[in-house]
Amino acid sequence: MALAPIITLLTDFGLREAYVASMKGVILSICPKAGIVDISHNVPKFDVRFGAFALAQATPYFPGGTIHLAVVDPEVGTERHPIAIKTKRFIFVGPDNGVLSLSAKNDGVETIVKIESSRHMLPKPSKTFAGRDVFAPVAAHLANGEPLTKLGPKLKTFKMLAISRPTLSEHRILGEVLVIDSFGNLITNIRSEDIRGRIKHGQCINVTIKDSTLRLRFMNAYAEVEKGEAVVLIGSSSYLEIGVNQGSIFERLKDVDPDTKVEIVL
Amino acid sequence: MALAPIITLLTDFGLREAYVASMKGVILSICPKAGIVDISHNVPKFDVRFGAFALAQATPYFPGGTIHLAVVDPEVGTERHPIAIKTKRFIFVGPDNGVLSLSAKNDGVETIVKIESSRHMLPKPSKTFAGRDVFAPVAAHLANGEPLTKLGPKLKTFKMLAISRPTLSEHRILGEVLVIDSFGNLITNIRSEDIRGRIKHGQCINVTIKDSTLRLRFMNAYAEVEKGEAVVLIGSSSYLEIGVNQGSIFERLKDVDPDTKVEIVL
Amino acid sequence: MALAPIITLLTDFGLREAYVASMKGVILSICPKAGIVDISHNVPKFDVRFGAFALAQATPYFPGGTIHLAVVDPEVGTERHPIAIKTKRFIFVGPDNGVLSLSAKNDGVETIVKIESSRHMLPKPSKTFAGRDVFAPVAAHLANGEPLTKLGPKLKTFKMLAISRPTLSEHRILGEVLVIDSFGNLITNIRSEDIRGRIKHGQCINVTIKDSTLRLRFMNAYAEVEKGEAVVLIGSSSYLEIGVNQGSIFERLKDVDPDTKVEIVL
Repeated sequence: MALAPIITLLTDFGLREAYVASMKGVILSICPKAGIVDISHNVPKFDVRFGAFALAQATPYFPGGTIHLAVVDPEVGTERHPIAIKTKRFIFVGPDNGVLSLSAKNDGVETIVKIESSRHMLPKPSKTFAGRDVFAPVAAHLANGEPLTKLGPKLKTFKMLAISRPTLSEHRILGEVLVIDSFGNLITNIRSEDIRGRIKHGQCINVTIKDSTLRLRFMNAYAEVEKGEAVVLIGSSSYLEIGVNQGSIFERLKDVDPDTKVEIVL
Repeated sequence: MALAPIITLLTDFGLREAYVASMKGVILSICPKAGIVDISHNVPKFDVRFGAFALAQATPYFPGGTIHLAVVDPEVGTERHPIAIKTKRFIFVGPDNGVLSLSAKNDGVETIVKIESSRHMLPKPSKTFAGRDVFAPVAAHLANGEPLTKLGPKLKTFKMLAISRPTLSEHRILGEVLVIDSFGNLITNIRSEDIRGRIKHGQCINVTIKDSTLRLRFMNAYAEVEKGEAVVLIGSSSYLEIGVNQGSIFERLKDVDPDTKVEIVL
Repeated sequence: MALAPIITLLTDFGLREAYVASMKGVILSICPKAGIVDISHNVPKFDVRFGAFALAQATPYFPGGTIHLAVVDPEVGTERHPIAIKTKRFIFVGPDNGVLSLSAKNDGVETIVKIESSRHMLPKPSKTFAGRDVFAPVAAHLANGEPLTKLGPKLKTFKMLAISRPTLSEHRILGEVLVIDSFGNLITNIRSEDIRGRIKHGQCINVTIKDSTLRLRFMNAYAEVEKGEAVVLIGSSSYLEIGVNQGSIFERLKDVDPDTKVEIVL
């Protein structure tokens, strides 16, 4: 017996109004056996990059065949077009603004289509809520087994999110903050392979964030340092992150944003 | 094979404590195959009107046969009584305080019952948590196919939420704010049919909210104006709304509440 | 036909990042038919006690056979060990730091194991995200029917959360605040059996919280007093709680925390 197809949802709609629930109603009306899993609906409003990272963090853990629907869509109703991307293991559905790009690229892109077929959308789609009127019904039809290529013409490419890479030199790594998570940890664009063999467990390193230079130990786990002590480690998504054991480095430092430079001197 | 019945939940309980989870446990204990979908649990505390609107926004998109349970219930434990309403496509369960009224009326009311049957409730129901002890088990029994009329005596009517209608004259529409959404958009009680044929796409109109008069363009989508520019449009629920492209009009104006008057001069 | 096993989740990860969704992906990859129910992901960060209470509030309402996974885990990656506890009706999975203890004890502990089996974890588990790499796969394998004892060696005991009991004398009860809920109600450690027969419905009692002494009526339901009036009652979890009808006593009093003393004079 075929198992229920999974559709994941990521939006910046929040969970106070019924926007997300309307999308779920649309999906279940078209594909009643879909299993819907929320990735996040608390993406900061209009923050395509945060959404792209959150999506990329979660999607690899889902079973093959999962359909991932992501709507962080500041240009809804205008010229950006809706797309669907078939990758090695998944299908991604959302606006062509970069929100799908990291996850899709990581999984290996096979086919990209521009969504044009009105019979796979709700009748008379609104110009302000493509999540409900375009993306939800399209994802549900795909969950029902509809081939991707019925949705519209193939595209050769889609918009990639630009992610800066850190600058590496012998004793210095210059990166930046990608995401500040809800623990207040600063997740940087420095990846585990950027520092492999260069820092040892327990080693002290100088980390400069804005005007503050901190001398921190490089550990495996937050709880290896004292409660309240700041620490550097490789987090669960293989990025270098800076945090405080049972505390928030974000609250301790002033004015850190995504894009804030982070300099590490070994 | 019969598909899993869907039960939707809307409350003002929030998602920090386990109140909502207790309700889900009760439902799944009685009807293990129920598919539970959250509409919102972040309705502002005790705000029956907000809850009624959120419910009315989402329910039309669910498949026929869905059971919608809504608990925004400031008078829990006192004389307001629990009701169930069979409409053309759905069953609604909740307190008789107006929270169900917009959705039920929109779908076409068929039968109303007062919930009295203690064998459809948890044993010894508390006086403070009817969501868990009365409404959740009732919804689950209905999902199991229990007829509505087993729950208690029929009622002729239920409490309707009073929604003011805008005043329309030749060059002027006087309405009010119904809901401020999490994007900071002001959703008014002016419906698309109130302005049909009276405003053209791209037309500039004067909108007065409290002491501020704004000259705004009437568009189809937020992104048709510049980032940061305010705009008027018909939103995804067919109400006229006022917002800012990738910003918040609520944060820009001071002291706007639901009920704040909105005057439009064409 | 066997029904889908239910796995509940409680964490302090929040719902903005994709941490919880990663766990769900892992679970559904291993046990595609699992029904996942969120208890709470908004447990205050690192607050094991709040998590333990929320878990204990909800778990009794779930069907027998449910697997409850709880991760509030300030010592992740260090010496605290992961455990699974078979109780009379449930299986609990999480760190051995007390978060499971109230619920497990309430349900009747049968078997405790230390989780050591790496084939029930993700390959190369991270040191910072046991929720995804250890607890989620273990819960999913248990949902697939894997016996508890395959996970690791049996333990004789687990860490119990210390909960202070109130001091009872003839005309005085001295307890403390356990939890402040999102309505601003103060839930105390005084249980219904501590006051049974000692306070009558409608009786006025003196309640001292920090420097404020309030003369409050003891009622069954919040709405039995005037809107905005403070009241004492036995809440839905059988603890004495202090609140305001359609308001927040927490916002009215200053500086109340969990552990704040509450003195009742009859």
